[in-house]
Amino acid sequence: MTNPVYQILENYMLSCMGDSAHDKEHIYRVLYSALEIAREEQDVDYDVLICSCLLHDIGRKEQFENPSLCHARVGSEKAYRFLMEQGFEESFAAKVRHCILTHRYRNNNVPETVEARILFDADKLDVTGAIGIARTLFYKGQLSEPLYNVDDQGRVQDGTSDTSPSFFQEYKYKLENIYSHFFTKKGAELAQARRQAAVSYYEDLLEEVRPMYEKGRRELAERGIGGQ
Amino acid sequence: MTNPVYQILENYMLSCMGDSAHDKEHIYRVLYSALEIAREEQDVDYDVLICSCLLHDIGRKEQFENPSLCHARVGSEKAYRFLMEQGFEESFAAKVRHCILTHRYRNNNVPETVEARILFDADKLDVTGAIGIARTLFYKGQLSEPLYNVDDQGRVQDGTSDTSPSFFQEYKYKLENIYSHFFTKKGAELAQARRQAAVSYYEDLLEEVRPMYEKGRRELAERGIGGQ
Repeated sequence: MTNPVYQILENYMLSCMGDSAHDKEHIYRVLYSALEIAREEQDVDYDVLICSCLLHDIGRKEQFENPSLCHARVGSEKAYRFLMEQGFEESFAAKVRHCILTHRYRNNNVPETVEARILFDADKLDVTGAIGIARTLFYKGQLSEPLYNVDDQGRVQDGTSDTSPSFFQEYKYKLENIYSHFFTKKGAELAQARRQAAVSYYEDLLEEVRPMYEKGRRELAERGIGGQ
Repeated sequence: MTNPVYQILENYMLSCMGDSAHDKEHIYRVLYSALEIAREEQDVDYDVLICSCLLHDIGRKEQFENPSLCHARVGSEKAYRFLMEQGFEESFAAKVRHCILTHRYRNNNVPETVEARILFDADKLDVTGAIGIARTLFYKGQLSEPLYNVDDQGRVQDGTSDTSPSFFQEYKYKLENIYSHFFTKKGAELAQARRQAAVSYYEDLLEEVRPMYEKGRRELAERGIGGQ
């Protein structure tokens, strides 16, 4: 890929980006992680990989405005059209479309090329470790969801059996379980290296708040207060 | 304080609360921390303390809607009026007003009573450790500010000399330096016990992102790409 081509793709990506949790720095992190993973994979088409990384989230805005849309599907078609308009080969545009369509953790489209598997892993790496914690907290803040739920006895719920959204619920349902689903060896290794940062943060936070509620509620009860 | 009085104060507090970073669970954490700190202080008026904790942030909404207002000042007057309307003694309402007026980290009103010093410390405790990190990330997400800034050479800034807002800047300017400004011995001890959780999280996050940018930018440069 030449620098002018990179600039065209980068500028198009920048024109499509919005909120903090999926801001442009997420794109660069995914691109840089993908390059690191790619070094240990065979027969990687770097042009397809770099282009797919840059454009993988360009459908986010459409999904944000209409949550019934899938950003991977919207983004893959948007990227294909953009690349065709810019005069790229159809086979190139189609390969990028496949990578973007299959990068999403939740959908059923399986990555079938090495570039698609690398993008998938690089994108998922950004949900691991301290960066995964930060992005999740950013997102929960934007949605005004709570850090944790408190049951009717005033006990802090750790996320395991929460029935309404919270940061702890997201940690237990998604962040904690993400480490075993990587396609590439290098992606899995990078994820494992970050795992303890996320575990420690979750445990530190739970340990700060949970005993505080127990002691505080007990002291109020001793004063005849509480039980709302 | 009787349970019915507590319920009146709690209900009034709940009717005034809003966004996640200063949501009602912040109020309970401050109350519970204040009770823990109070155990090691002398001559604490628990009615003043509990009431002040419950009502300390009731001016947040007004400050949010008009940032030139100070929530401590607005909240202190609002609490005084509410307590007088509810038939509390004027001396009680005035003590609570002093606690709320002086609880704010940034203003120049110094806490002059033991209850005011306890509230100040309990409120500041909620900016320490893992909970301080979580609340700051929530807030930055709501403002759509970035996690970190990247300079024109593509280097991740650690917050030390950032000239625009970011989570790393907030950490370096505020969170990192908060541990030495507590009025009570117990408050300082509780803060110190949480310090490492915040330091570790910041260091883990910086260590995840900074080398990634360095390596990624270098690899792109080797391919003749970058330098935008």
